[in-house]
Amino acid sequence: MFEAAELGRKVSKQDYETQVEALRPELLDAQFALRETNIPVIVIVAGVDGAGKGQVVNRLNEWLDPRDVEVTAFGPHSDEEQERPAYWRYWRALPPRGRIGVVFGSWYTGPIVRRVYREVKDADLDRALDRIVSFERMLVQDGALLVKFWFHLSKEAQRKRLRCLEKDPDTRWQVSPIEWKHFKRYSRFAAISERAIRHTDTGLAPWVLVEATDPRYRDLMAGRTLLQALKQRLETQGTAGAVVPSPLPSPPPGPEAAVTILDHVDISRRLDRDQYRRQLLHCQGKLSRLSRRAWTKGRSTVVVFEGWDAAGKGGAIRRMTAAIDARGYRVISIAAPTDEERAHHYLWRFWRHIPRAGHVTIYDRSWYGRVLVERVEGFASEPEWMRAHMEINDFEEQLCDHGIALVKFWLHISNEEQLRRFQEREQTPYKQYKITAEDWRNREKWDAYKDAVNDMVARTSTSYAPWTLVPANDKKYARIHILSTVCERLEAML
Amino acid sequence: MFEAAELGRKVSKQDYETQVEALRPELLDAQFALRETNIPVIVIVAGVDGAGKGQVVNRLNEWLDPRDVEVTAFGPHSDEEQERPAYWRYWRALPPRGRIGVVFGSWYTGPIVRRVYREVKDADLDRALDRIVSFERMLVQDGALLVKFWFHLSKEAQRKRLRCLEKDPDTRWQVSPIEWKHFKRYSRFAAISERAIRHTDTGLAPWVLVEATDPRYRDLMAGRTLLQALKQRLETQGTAGAVVPSPLPSPPPGPEAAVTILDHVDISRRLDRDQYRRQLLHCQGKLSRLSRRAWTKGRSTVVVFEGWDAAGKGGAIRRMTAAIDARGYRVISIAAPTDEERAHHYLWRFWRHIPRAGHVTIYDRSWYGRVLVERVEGFASEPEWMRAHMEINDFEEQLCDHGIALVKFWLHISNEEQLRRFQEREQTPYKQYKITAEDWRNREKWDAYKDAVNDMVARTSTSYAPWTLVPANDKKYARIHILSTVCERLEAML
Repeated sequence: MFEAAELGRKVSKQDYETQVEALRPELLDAQFALRETNIPVIVIVAGVDGAGKGQVVNRLNEWLDPRDVEVTAFGPHSDEEQERPAYWRYWRALPPRGRIGVVFGSWYTGPIVRRVYREVKDADLDRALDRIVSFERMLVQDGALLVKFWFHLSKEAQRKRLRCLEKDPDTRWQVSPIEWKHFKRYSRFAAISERAIRHTDTGLAPWVLVEATDPRYRDLMAGRTLLQALKQRLETQGTAGAVVPSPLPSPPPGPEAAVTILDHVDISRRLDRDQYRRQLLHCQGKLSRLSRRAWTKGRSTVVVFEGWDAAGKGGAIRRMTAAIDARGYRVISIAAPTDEERAHHYLWRFWRHIPRAGHVTIYDRSWYGRVLVERVEGFASEPEWMRAHMEINDFEEQLCDHGIALVKFWLHISNEEQLRRFQEREQTPYKQYKITAEDWRNREKWDAYKDAVNDMVARTSTSYAPWTLVPANDKKYARIHILSTVCERLEAML
Repeated sequence: MFEAAELGRKVSKQDYETQVEALRPELLDAQFALRETNIPVIVIVAGVDGAGKGQVVNRLNEWLDPRDVEVTAFGPHSDEEQERPAYWRYWRALPPRGRIGVVFGSWYTGPIVRRVYREVKDADLDRALDRIVSFERMLVQDGALLVKFWFHLSKEAQRKRLRCLEKDPDTRWQVSPIEWKHFKRYSRFAAISERAIRHTDTGLAPWVLVEATDPRYRDLMAGRTLLQALKQRLETQGTAGAVVPSPLPSPPPGPEAAVTILDHVDISRRLDRDQYRRQLLHCQGKLSRLSRRAWTKGRSTVVVFEGWDAAGKGGAIRRMTAAIDARGYRVISIAAPTDEERAHHYLWRFWRHIPRAGHVTIYDRSWYGRVLVERVEGFASEPEWMRAHMEINDFEEQLCDHGIALVKFWLHISNEEQLRRFQEREQTPYKQYKITAEDWRNREKWDAYKDAVNDMVARTSTSYAPWTLVPANDKKYARIHILSTVCERLEAML
């Protein structure tokens, strides 16, 4: 593959200057047009050591308006990053819509280097590459433009470049023993990089291989490629969602085709007052001890509450938080996104609250809004919410891979019980604020929500993150069921 | 002082339950009303070890709706916090308007503990306390409600409490050798805490001293105090800004009274093309080396660009960034705040971009918007922008105390030069986007802006963060002046 980037291509100084003069205003124009769109642009700068990746980025920043460009280099993990799933640091660095984010090495560096030094096997590498493919597809389907550069040098050219950098006192710092250590493994690096590139060279996010021997050729290629990508993307702007094929099969038949999962929830389960009191104390005591142990061991927990309106999410959450030290948990209540959240992929607002080691995050409604309210209300298109099931599985797998205990509850009540509770709320002075016209409107869409919930459970109840369907017609039963489930999951983890 | 909290006050179980029953719905009501306001509520929980601070917060969280409460305990600094000024971690934890943030120990712990263990002197303690007073005043004047609890135990009560906690296997973890080490210094802790409390017990942010021997009394006092504070604040909601006295003297006489600072800028300075080219290369080379040294040494830089519309800020910024590695700087362009930014104090959006060790943040417009555009356009009231000068000095002092190089430029052009540039922009196709109706409107307010700039320079040019007024009628001269100033400041720092 890399032979195509060892052809000795060069650009004369004069040609370079002429071409740059034409390129710059066009790049600025494209960048200016980009600002008015909802397209985030992610430029990945990868390749061999000494290929001048830093120089290219400096050059691009010189040609562009640096105010709309965010450059991120991923050095050693900070402890705040270390305590969260691997991709947390990449989510942090994603540019908002209308802006350009340049990332060095990015999500590719780790998998390649670990495989070169045999810390992992081919299968692990492939798994990491699969994750990259999903991640990038998700971004592109959300409207992002990905431009991925791989800057290449032949072995001989790399040797020369490193020697040359070493000689100049101004650039000597760029060559450390690590670069030479990498250089000794040139062929191995090349083979594994090639595997990575092939695996991730998708139609949605193709690689651009750039010969980096001549700096002028290299910079010009990068600039022109970026310009072309921007222009193309700007032209197809409105249709981006439409041209992206959905990788999912068509939706399953409607609920009339079968008895649904929800129909199997035995909502008649209840507890009497005495049982409840006794078990509540018991469960809370247990949760208190378990959450302290998780804290000490630095193991995090994420709890998701979904359910019908008035199903008792708030009350259940309070029974849980009462047992956990207030310093260790945070309840995130999901309402309308802020404008910063709206300027990113819909999962971004959830990633930002992923807890540090030992902490607990409780989501009162969650990313499942994408396949529930957004689906039913039409805020997300069918391809969008269909693929969201898979994106969510992927997201949750990353949490679980990091060792986070993820517990998901659907609080299920009957249609009649909801009506009873709505009416009660309307009649109780200090509960009136809990019931709005929107609740009544949602209620009218009960069947559509039921379809959505059934699909959701069918598609996102995984071995690592199963759904717990909670019979919640009786609040007491529901709360105990929830507390004991959380305890079980923590016990299994610790 | 603490005798007042050693009176053995108690609440019987029955009294407690009756009172809590009345308190809870009222607290929830107040919290619900709070949501609709723009008041952020900050509850500080401080006091002696073993007083049950954690228990109080758990109790408050149980009484309140935990979804609107964010509890933060400040443990050891993460490395991301370590690399920034001390208050960065507190700014991160400030609640947005309409919500409650509970902070443990907070900004008080460090100064008190350092003084107890004689790491610093009384003068340092007082300086730290002064900073706290300014910080809290700033928050309150911005509309925040501060409720500060100090939970007290007598020496004997503390000994008993620690022993008791140690005996119970469920609470043993709360008592480490550190608690006993602190206990041995009970009187010293008491004396220094008293000094801290007295120093920071201001009308705007008074302390509430709570006797913590009886947990029921303690929790009830905390709950009732919080309720009362919320109710009072909600009642005076609209008038909060008005009742807060401005600590600043009245504004200085208008510009007609004297020749202004801006009039002293010699805008006739220019450079010819050859001089410019030579000096540009020289300065950029120097800046490149210096910024690399700063990176290696972990010293950060903040550069502020302010100036008249069309004064050449963008061009000057690009000449600077061209000399710095793209991985090491970020340009923050200040336009309208996002809604998350609007939900906080106006300085919050600048604090969030304070660079990590070794990095450079360039602000294209900055916190000075408060005393420039917001003053002239009336977005900030006179007391608000008047006191902003002092708040800004305080902010900048914190940056400099942390060892950050802070460089501030005002790019000055004449009224006629601005007109010329506006017209030129209108006539040059690829510059047209740079000129809007708003620019022409601003231009009509030239004199009002001039007053504001003069006041700004007079009030915020400090020994640690002086303004550099840049004659910018000639862009070439301005750029070199800016580059060489940054180099000088970096050289002085390194």
